[in-house]
Amino acid sequence: MAPAAKVRVAINGYGTIGKRVADAVAKQPDMVLAGVAKTRPSFEAVRAVEKGYPLFVAGTGRAAEFEAVGLKVAGTLPDLLGRADIVVDATPDDVGLANRAIYAQRGIRAIFQGGEDADIAEASFSALANYAACRGKRSLRVVSCNTTGIARAVSVVEPRWGVASWEATLVRRAADPAESSRGPVNGILPHFHIPSHHGPDVRTVYPDLPIVTTALVVPTTLMHVHANHVRLRTAPKDVAEVIRAFRETPRFHLFAPWERVDGTPQAMEYARDRGIGLNDMIENVVWEAGVHLEGRELRFFQAIHQESIVVPENIDAIRAMLDLAPDGPTSVTRTDRALGIPAPR
Amino acid sequence: MAPAAKVRVAINGYGTIGKRVADAVAKQPDMVLAGVAKTRPSFEAVRAVEKGYPLFVAGTGRAAEFEAVGLKVAGTLPDLLGRADIVVDATPDDVGLANRAIYAQRGIRAIFQGGEDADIAEASFSALANYAACRGKRSLRVVSCNTTGIARAVSVVEPRWGVASWEATLVRRAADPAESSRGPVNGILPHFHIPSHHGPDVRTVYPDLPIVTTALVVPTTLMHVHANHVRLRTAPKDVAEVIRAFRETPRFHLFAPWERVDGTPQAMEYARDRGIGLNDMIENVVWEAGVHLEGRELRFFQAIHQESIVVPENIDAIRAMLDLAPDGPTSVTRTDRALGIPAPR
Amino acid sequence: MAPAAKVRVAINGYGTIGKRVADAVAKQPDMVLAGVAKTRPSFEAVRAVEKGYPLFVAGTGRAAEFEAVGLKVAGTLPDLLGRADIVVDATPDDVGLANRAIYAQRGIRAIFQGGEDADIAEASFSALANYAACRGKRSLRVVSCNTTGIARAVSVVEPRWGVASWEATLVRRAADPAESSRGPVNGILPHFHIPSHHGPDVRTVYPDLPIVTTALVVPTTLMHVHANHVRLRTAPKDVAEVIRAFRETPRFHLFAPWERVDGTPQAMEYARDRGIGLNDMIENVVWEAGVHLEGRELRFFQAIHQESIVVPENIDAIRAMLDLAPDGPTSVTRTDRALGIPAPR
Amino acid sequence: MAPAAKVRVAINGYGTIGKRVADAVAKQPDMVLAGVAKTRPSFEAVRAVEKGYPLFVAGTGRAAEFEAVGLKVAGTLPDLLGRADIVVDATPDDVGLANRAIYAQRGIRAIFQGGEDADIAEASFSALANYAACRGKRSLRVVSCNTTGIARAVSVVEPRWGVASWEATLVRRAADPAESSRGPVNGILPHFHIPSHHGPDVRTVYPDLPIVTTALVVPTTLMHVHANHVRLRTAPKDVAEVIRAFRETPRFHLFAPWERVDGTPQAMEYARDRGIGLNDMIENVVWEAGVHLEGRELRFFQAIHQESIVVPENIDAIRAMLDLAPDGPTSVTRTDRALGIPAPR
Repeated sequence: MAPAAKVRVAINGYGTIGKRVADAVAKQPDMVLAGVAKTRPSFEAVRAVEKGYPLFVAGTGRAAEFEAVGLKVAGTLPDLLGRADIVVDATPDDVGLANRAIYAQRGIRAIFQGGEDADIAEASFSALANYAACRGKRSLRVVSCNTTGIARAVSVVEPRWGVASWEATLVRRAADPAESSRGPVNGILPHFHIPSHHGPDVRTVYPDLPIVTTALVVPTTLMHVHANHVRLRTAPKDVAEVIRAFRETPRFHLFAPWERVDGTPQAMEYARDRGIGLNDMIENVVWEAGVHLEGRELRFFQAIHQESIVVPENIDAIRAMLDLAPDGPTSVTRTDRALGIPAPR
Repeated sequence: MAPAAKVRVAINGYGTIGKRVADAVAKQPDMVLAGVAKTRPSFEAVRAVEKGYPLFVAGTGRAAEFEAVGLKVAGTLPDLLGRADIVVDATPDDVGLANRAIYAQRGIRAIFQGGEDADIAEASFSALANYAACRGKRSLRVVSCNTTGIARAVSVVEPRWGVASWEATLVRRAADPAESSRGPVNGILPHFHIPSHHGPDVRTVYPDLPIVTTALVVPTTLMHVHANHVRLRTAPKDVAEVIRAFRETPRFHLFAPWERVDGTPQAMEYARDRGIGLNDMIENVVWEAGVHLEGRELRFFQAIHQESIVVPENIDAIRAMLDLAPDGPTSVTRTDRALGIPAPR
Repeated sequence: MAPAAKVRVAINGYGTIGKRVADAVAKQPDMVLAGVAKTRPSFEAVRAVEKGYPLFVAGTGRAAEFEAVGLKVAGTLPDLLGRADIVVDATPDDVGLANRAIYAQRGIRAIFQGGEDADIAEASFSALANYAACRGKRSLRVVSCNTTGIARAVSVVEPRWGVASWEATLVRRAADPAESSRGPVNGILPHFHIPSHHGPDVRTVYPDLPIVTTALVVPTTLMHVHANHVRLRTAPKDVAEVIRAFRETPRFHLFAPWERVDGTPQAMEYARDRGIGLNDMIENVVWEAGVHLEGRELRFFQAIHQESIVVPENIDAIRAMLDLAPDGPTSVTRTDRALGIPAPR
Repeated sequence: MAPAAKVRVAINGYGTIGKRVADAVAKQPDMVLAGVAKTRPSFEAVRAVEKGYPLFVAGTGRAAEFEAVGLKVAGTLPDLLGRADIVVDATPDDVGLANRAIYAQRGIRAIFQGGEDADIAEASFSALANYAACRGKRSLRVVSCNTTGIARAVSVVEPRWGVASWEATLVRRAADPAESSRGPVNGILPHFHIPSHHGPDVRTVYPDLPIVTTALVVPTTLMHVHANHVRLRTAPKDVAEVIRAFRETPRFHLFAPWERVDGTPQAMEYARDRGIGLNDMIENVVWEAGVHLEGRELRFFQAIHQESIVVPENIDAIRAMLDLAPDGPTSVTRTDRALGIPAPR
């Protein structure tokens, strides 16, 4: 029997998310990177070329601008779309909406990011939550980093003990490490809209979850941290049962107290030491010492690496749409193995 | 009838809190500042002298070190205690405990700060919560800035609608503006101990309150921000009723959306514009747009200026201990008027 | 003889600079504040009204928007200009240029800020440098905070020992304390244009000065710090002579080592303790320990409070244009006394 | 002829520098990592074990503490020293001095880091500066990150055009990314000692260089940035000649304007994209747009990654001491190739 042809994936937008999804696609055994589209030359475009990624000119970009600095381009976005089975749109917020028409016109399946409104696609997606329901869709939206982090935690807690109510306070990073123009430099900015949009966004993948989120922005670039308070329907035996449940779930990483990880600075240092592509921390970070259970009241912190957490989710979304795996867990295992994320212990 | 003699107040420790309490004492009509005690010369000692505050040498300090730089000292801490009716201990955390024996030996009444353990004094104090219960005490502990902030909010909510449960996530500032050696510079540090000590500390003034707090430290110097989630026993009519309740309570300041106060940077800018001593924000800051009510579920943010919020509380504690006012509200009104804090509108 | 009528000053723009200049005008014995113009309501507009400043609607603002929140307006910008002898334009960068035509049409004298190009006005102004040359001008531009800081230092050094070359590295603050949208949060951004524009700008007031500046932006909100390296033409006797020269010059504040001022955090804490309006640090801050002399090579740090340093300069510019003082030093002394800045010791 | 036995290298101290030098040793064709010594268990110890590095207990550490968390130890520091030909001491500042006696007693060659005083070793070392002079030494001190960065730049400039004077203003990072307790959070701290220690330290490798350095600390974790002003003895033809000289020197990385690298945030993002171990930026970063030449006056910025820049220098120091390479350039080329640093273009 002939081996299945690999799926050809196009990436439109080559910033924080796009470059990571490109790398992740390139590592998957059942996918091939058709190319990446970028608007302007930059050090990141150089790196794409060095990695052998076909480089296409996106949006309002001009090929001449790339060629003037010695960067060879393989064509424009339409050329790229013509060579691909599916496109991952990783353009800035709200640009995806404009692109949707282009993709629709060409009849190419498309994945959008969580910065877009939920109605941009047939469904919103989070791998541990609703893989099965998203199979065969022609368009999906991978929910945002914070929503992904919450959805993963829900996938641990809800099936085991039930959720009577879930309150999350999201302490958000102000900017990504390479975004040098955004603030605040010194201050805390609450989101006055309560609940914040994250709770409703979680319900795009867990429709009936009784969740309310509030959010604040603080001057750091590394990770978001969530403080969660969950009222469970049934009580776990003890906190160890909860910690074990996190530990045995894919895409969670737990730190024990003796590891001396006091917060996000050391969690990202761990990620640097581990050395998965771009030194990312693709898993939800949970500190054992920061999980607290009292009867049916569960409280825990989790840290979310805003740059990378949605990357494996995009990969799984591709598999769901093109039916490349028998089920969600199989896709997740395949993705994580290819990315070098350790399997749950 | 002869006018009552003013109470003579000594301040031991002249840092962030001590210098503010000294200024506040100096402004009260029924108090006189006996002097301030400081360990080492500094720009703050110069300023004390310029303001005419008698300066005494505290702890391990040496008078010669002050005199070498032209700062005249009036004696040592024991001298200062000999001239005072009461001492406010504003020394660094845990130093107060050592000082307690000195005060006890001299039989002088003493007020300690919230960095000390609760058992350092006969009772813990928060003006809107338990003034009456603290009258006549020989020692009191003014609860810390975060605890004061919460206790004030409880004093608004509990009597009106009852509290079934109170959850607060405390997003704490990393350092005070003039503390240049403390971090983190870039990162979020959760307090892994859940509940954080603040909840139990609130119960030193509201013994039966069903409160749980969690806390994180973030890289800012301006203010703490609390995200509160309160389950009320009875429902307010609407969110306006809640906002009105905050507005009519002393030591709360509300910002309307059109005032363009997006977070702590603008809240402290407001304080600078207002120009109360040291440009402090002595009130709890509540944003109208950040108060949300759904049935009996109340959520709101409040910002707490860590440097100044306990200052009027120390003044009221003096009055409670020496019975200088007929009741708490009278003391609060007198304190706030002297400090220039506007009365509730 | 009748007392001279006070000069009526209008302030267009009521942000960081405008509100400070308004306060400063209100404190001068020979000036009266005709009013301030602001585009939109905000907490700062409330404060202006509370202080009794006539409030006018500027630019694209609408009176109805102010009145809807209870802020009474006295008219529009043209109304304000009609009641004034001179206008200080403190609008954002590049807006001043558009306003110039309005001022010219009405024939009112105008002062612009350093964010505008030098050719917006007849001359650039710095009080210690070129007061005399600016007398009677119909338009002036007060140079920016960094340029003002350098020009003041030049006024100390150049007349005493001559300047063979002046190199300054400007370590700039990223944002003002209340500007919560500007970054970077974590990083250093060099100005690649060498020399930075500050050097040429200094030459608008010291035309022949052999100065070169370079600049970087760092994530702090408090102050700029300059590292200066000056080659002198003649050697001072010793470093004490240099320190004394700074000390005896208006608008310089020196810190001795025993004052424990390690950097900008404590320098601004000093300013808070001192309590001049908005807790500003209107003087150049020089640390005695940070002045170093070796032969004719002088090196020193100075810190510049970007929010307030140009405020007294605007006042002196008014006096120069309207010839309200016999000479620059008299104006400087009068301004500083009114603002509460101590005279040189 | 039998192949030369590989040199066995011990690493004492497994923090920021130690773990990087261990990785670098493990990648060299002529070296083998004998093991690493660490005081306490941590996530970094786990990673060492995962990488197969023999783990030894250092200093006051106890094997039982490691074993309690499942980390197998191979012995203590003396055991490690017994298996090695040379030790790289990467312990915290001033601990190296205490260790020196231990190394001397066992007669093992030792390399110390720049946090120690210069007299801890026979000579100070910087690969591009004085490799030849350090051959065969029994102890060396690799100069600190800032000094290394300057020495490299001197190695480009001095031989080509001569240095009449070199002034560098060092804008230093406050803490490393994983150091969460150090500040300042918001402020600039000048080093009042002028010249800063860096200038004299450069002269430990370039004895006669007329260099003066000044330094300030700013709240960032990513990199230091130096603003350099060099008076050359002869004039380069043009700025392109200078840029070319940097470009053709090992351990320099230049960014062109079109690469959109605005400062240290994007420079470190480049390093992440490139993906050399721990995403380090081992080279001096120079921006073409930030190099300015006017006659014999050269000015340029360079950014220095404090965590990694000394790593290849430690490797070259090993080769110099044990005479493993015919000359410095050969060692540098060998080191850089093994580390994945591109050769100069």
